[in-house]
Amino acid sequence: MFDPIEKLKEFIRHQSISADSTAKAGMQGAQQFVADLLKSFGFAVESVTTALHPIIFAQRGGDPSWPHVVIYGHYDVQPADPLALWKTPAFEPTIIGNRIYGRGAADNKGPLMTNIAAVAQLLEQHPNLPLRITFLIEGEEEMGSPSFPKFLETYADKLREADFVFLSDTALPNEQQVVITAGLRGLALFDVHLTGAKGDLHSGLHGGVLRNPIQALAEILATLHTPEGRVNVPGFYDDVLDVEPWERDELKKLGADEKAYADFLGIDTFYTTPGFSPFESVRFQPTLEFNGIGGGYQGEGTKTVIPSKAFAKISCRLVPNQEPDKIKKLVMDAIRARTPKGIKLEFVDQHKGDPYVVVPPGRSNTPVDQSPVLAKAFRATDAAVTTVWGRPPLYLREGGSVPIIADIKHTTGLDSVMFGLFLPEDNLHAPNESFNLDVMRKGIETTRRILASVAGVTA
Amino acid sequence: MFDPIEKLKEFIRHQSISADSTAKAGMQGAQQFVADLLKSFGFAVESVTTALHPIIFAQRGGDPSWPHVVIYGHYDVQPADPLALWKTPAFEPTIIGNRIYGRGAADNKGPLMTNIAAVAQLLEQHPNLPLRITFLIEGEEEMGSPSFPKFLETYADKLREADFVFLSDTALPNEQQVVITAGLRGLALFDVHLTGAKGDLHSGLHGGVLRNPIQALAEILATLHTPEGRVNVPGFYDDVLDVEPWERDELKKLGADEKAYADFLGIDTFYTTPGFSPFESVRFQPTLEFNGIGGGYQGEGTKTVIPSKAFAKISCRLVPNQEPDKIKKLVMDAIRARTPKGIKLEFVDQHKGDPYVVVPPGRSNTPVDQSPVLAKAFRATDAAVTTVWGRPPLYLREGGSVPIIADIKHTTGLDSVMFGLFLPEDNLHAPNESFNLDVMRKGIETTRRILASVAGVTA
Repeated sequence: MFDPIEKLKEFIRHQSISADSTAKAGMQGAQQFVADLLKSFGFAVESVTTALHPIIFAQRGGDPSWPHVVIYGHYDVQPADPLALWKTPAFEPTIIGNRIYGRGAADNKGPLMTNIAAVAQLLEQHPNLPLRITFLIEGEEEMGSPSFPKFLETYADKLREADFVFLSDTALPNEQQVVITAGLRGLALFDVHLTGAKGDLHSGLHGGVLRNPIQALAEILATLHTPEGRVNVPGFYDDVLDVEPWERDELKKLGADEKAYADFLGIDTFYTTPGFSPFESVRFQPTLEFNGIGGGYQGEGTKTVIPSKAFAKISCRLVPNQEPDKIKKLVMDAIRARTPKGIKLEFVDQHKGDPYVVVPPGRSNTPVDQSPVLAKAFRATDAAVTTVWGRPPLYLREGGSVPIIADIKHTTGLDSVMFGLFLPEDNLHAPNESFNLDVMRKGIETTRRILASVAGVTA
Repeated sequence: MFDPIEKLKEFIRHQSISADSTAKAGMQGAQQFVADLLKSFGFAVESVTTALHPIIFAQRGGDPSWPHVVIYGHYDVQPADPLALWKTPAFEPTIIGNRIYGRGAADNKGPLMTNIAAVAQLLEQHPNLPLRITFLIEGEEEMGSPSFPKFLETYADKLREADFVFLSDTALPNEQQVVITAGLRGLALFDVHLTGAKGDLHSGLHGGVLRNPIQALAEILATLHTPEGRVNVPGFYDDVLDVEPWERDELKKLGADEKAYADFLGIDTFYTTPGFSPFESVRFQPTLEFNGIGGGYQGEGTKTVIPSKAFAKISCRLVPNQEPDKIKKLVMDAIRARTPKGIKLEFVDQHKGDPYVVVPPGRSNTPVDQSPVLAKAFRATDAAVTTVWGRPPLYLREGGSVPIIADIKHTTGLDSVMFGLFLPEDNLHAPNESFNLDVMRKGIETTRRILASVAGVTA
């Protein structure tokens, strides 16, 4: 059996930045590393070619009556810049105390290695383990998984043979409390471009005769929220599912501290959907955010210009059962209706992702139609977490988005058990990313127990 | 006698962008070029050191009984960006048809060269010309002339010896009709900076709990105008003088075509102060414009961030008798009062300028106290324009600002004869700036005749 921490170090050294076209060697290296590792304990590894970075599809087959788990992960990482802010080299894994530092340590190389190591240990323990396992490890997660939908179409039939998806690419609130992510928000993104005069104009010679597109943009954007904090677009909330009482109860058990959260953000007042606490709002409510705005002169000093153009980048986070295309249309229609005369409007469509929710067995008041293996996997997770961490997990929706989880559900019907392993202090997507090695050790033990239980063998 | 067009080319090649600290060589080159040119036909040139860019103060003295004209201009230009939109290189003067293209061609290098050439020709014709001439050519006009007030204080006594100021840094409505600018708008500029959270945030993990500073900025800016087009700031219009009947009559003579103006701007609807035509609005009414806006991610694709900061650049054009400091305070107070909780507000003050008005002899219904030489200069201008252009000039206020004109008036009592030379199609402050060479030729002839007449010699 290999040493998971040594293998993680090796994995981190591959500079697998998917968005960086100069990082091809690192991408190929990381992909080869994972493929070789999975082969070393018996997996049949297929490298599925895509338009960009291959997807690793590795299978341990078996009797069709055995349960079948798909373990998802990704071998690509975010860019490491600004490099000057790293205290240790970004791609030279460095252990300090109980943490391993390096780009990708927490997102997703450490958690993925946790799951791989758990499988390897379990197979060493039970060479004839009655469990079919498929690793599905992509290389474009940090780019928004552009090749994934096409892959899904082609591999849908193979995936439909499985019972559930298992992954560790979500968060723990703290080292003591495991959270199983019971839902993710969806996404709908587009840009708004406004044009006034056909070119930039001198604000003295022409100021006072036409509507400035920055003014028009401000006037439009200002209509998109109510003063109280709701999105002010007709129909926006129509499909939002009510929060179930068990979800609010579960969140209360988390015991999160609003004052500490405000301090972390550096704000002195929250601004949430009315009727929702900050911790509820971020999980249970949709948003309409402005991710960027630009127009006219942005340099030092002044330039007295009436710009021809201005734009904003808008993203909505969606909750079940909002549909990204429908929300895009509603917001675009509202913007169109609110664009004043004399201003030309154009939209640039960006990507999207469906929201996702999965209900753990026995929680909902309303009956849920769920596969027995999925239910078994949830119960196994509950028991394993309770044994290893000393307290049961919480089942909470999260504010972030992992669009492929909803894509898998829509295409294959498979639900996901999301066993979070990274901590808020792990600095994901930022300099000095790290992964807690105690969490890794407990994670390996937990995953091993979960899979053993699903297979019906002793852990 | 030098060739004015060749000299203008040489002038344009100096990249004299006063606001760009990397353009020092261009600034020094342009200053030296003007100084050498004025020396070449007998001026005593002084380069007056300022905190930033020197002011050229060049004199041709003479008998104290001779009339004395101060000719104003500036050797600095606006930044040339966005460079990609230029069809010819911004700093390589290019003649196409009857136009010379290049940054500064019309603002102010072409018009300034017109006046310099007229003086050179007149002095060649009348070496003993009974006229004292002072060139006052600054290098910070495009930055708001920050060093000018201090210069004015020091040189006030020397300037008080003069009778009037003459300049060509205003506009012609079209190639046939000369306008003598009888008034200018003032300026009040500042930036608004808003801060939400202490750093950029992931819009999934934290979206829905705080007010995005872009949203706050849009909501504040959207309150600053009424839907009808008035500035929505209490007290903003309190000090605005009523328009005199002769001014509206003079504007009617211009016979400007609204349809043609809309086509020129590329808009299908005007948006003016209610009760004012576009041509009146731009001359007689103040504005509040947004010259730039920025915040968050502005690149290609998406970045799902809640930015920490957003900003806007605001400029107000002012009319007599609005005071810039008072207007800045009114607008800042309104913004402060409209900034929501949870958002930190900071202002960065920029420059300012008073509005200006001068009444040509015999126009106003109310008597005006005016110096005899100024009145003579206005009559000489009327006659010279009528001779060279075939019709008399109109006397109109303009929408633009030349703040130093009001400063000179306040400090020294001198009024200005503003002989406009750039055309609406000259693209000032924009890509593909150009200057009409036919206008330049007629301009030289007109200025020569005006100065000859003020001096009392034959033209």
